[in-house]
Amino acid sequence: MTSNPAPHFQPVPLDKAYRLINHGPTVLVSSCHAGEVDVMAAAWACALDFSPPRVTVVIDKTTRTRVLVEGSTAFALCVPCAAQAALTLGVGTDSALNVPDKLVRHGVKTFQAPGHEPPLVEGCVAWLVCRLIPEPHNQTAYDLFVGEVVGAWADDRVFHAGRWHFDGAPDELRTLHYVAGGQFYATGASLQVGNGG
Amino acid sequence: MTSNPAPHFQPVPLDKAYRLINHGPTVLVSSCHAGEVDVMAAAWACALDFSPPRVTVVIDKTTRTRVLVEGSTAFALCVPCAAQAALTLGVGTDSALNVPDKLVRHGVKTFQAPGHEPPLVEGCVAWLVCRLIPEPHNQTAYDLFVGEVVGAWADDRVFHAGRWHFDGAPDELRTLHYVAGGQFYATGASLQVGNGG
Repeated sequence: MTSNPAPHFQPVPLDKAYRLINHGPTVLVSSCHAGEVDVMAAAWACALDFSPPRVTVVIDKTTRTRVLVEGSTAFALCVPCAAQAALTLGVGTDSALNVPDKLVRHGVKTFQAPGHEPPLVEGCVAWLVCRLIPEPHNQTAYDLFVGEVVGAWADDRVFHAGRWHFDGAPDELRTLHYVAGGQFYATGASLQVGNGG
Repeated sequence: MTSNPAPHFQPVPLDKAYRLINHGPTVLVSSCHAGEVDVMAAAWACALDFSPPRVTVVIDKTTRTRVLVEGSTAFALCVPCAAQAALTLGVGTDSALNVPDKLVRHGVKTFQAPGHEPPLVEGCVAWLVCRLIPEPHNQTAYDLFVGEVVGAWADDRVFHAGRWHFDGAPDELRTLHYVAGGQFYATGASLQVGNGG
């Protein structure tokens, strides 16, 4: 883990953080605890509130990431791009429990944002650092975790002025939407209804 | 509300129902109670489990739909397509509380699937009928509702054999991903990693 973020890593105001995942992209869930880092993929992550910004994410009981999230009470949602489709599938398929070098194997490198503990995945296009809001019933009954977003950043080539701008950027920077069996959809064409007020 | 579904309305096995929303589309939440029908838009809906198939959806306290969901303990998630972007924005902006004819105004027509109470929106490309799983704390603290999917259908022009197939269909049948201010992204190009096993 380095402390050198990508050159296009720019802060996003917390009141706009929900927009980083409002369009339903598949995310990477990253966490670290007691010196151990893990990253998994999650299609089941969602905004929960604007203010304070909150998110939900489903983290299965079988994952090593869950142990780190519960231990550190913090995690990040990193939004991968089309260039990272194989990485995303890889960390979503292999578990650190039986593939201890899964991050190396799938080319995952992480860095930290100043003042924030959770590891962030290099090459992603958005990052939300979250403080776990303990909800034991949801965690036990549904594998459902609630987090409050305490820091947000995006790649300013595709997100600036509070909006995604995929149409003017390379397609490999588009976000991903997982279906099943290794199939993703990239985020597609922009449609504007009304005047955008 | 009629009982004549669209000609391309085909059942989806419940164990594949999660795939209808796994890619994170914006949905319409529909419900009826005591003869009243309402439909609202929700970008914050998400799969929660495969088996039994469960979903989460955030339904604000200010909505009329919430009263109907709580009264009937049932709702549907309908997945609108690009042709319905204006409809989706409209029912997401207007409330039945101050625009009583919002469904007529935005061209929303509904039908019922045989044996299921919740209204389904015509012209959508997928529909999930859900039984509310009461979770008073989540509903009160987070406006978060949990449902078990008890019936699922899709438009077989874009979903068949357990997968979306947007690439061979008209772009107006692609699903939508809402950002903010009337801006949506359509579901884009398919990316396959590995052999799709």
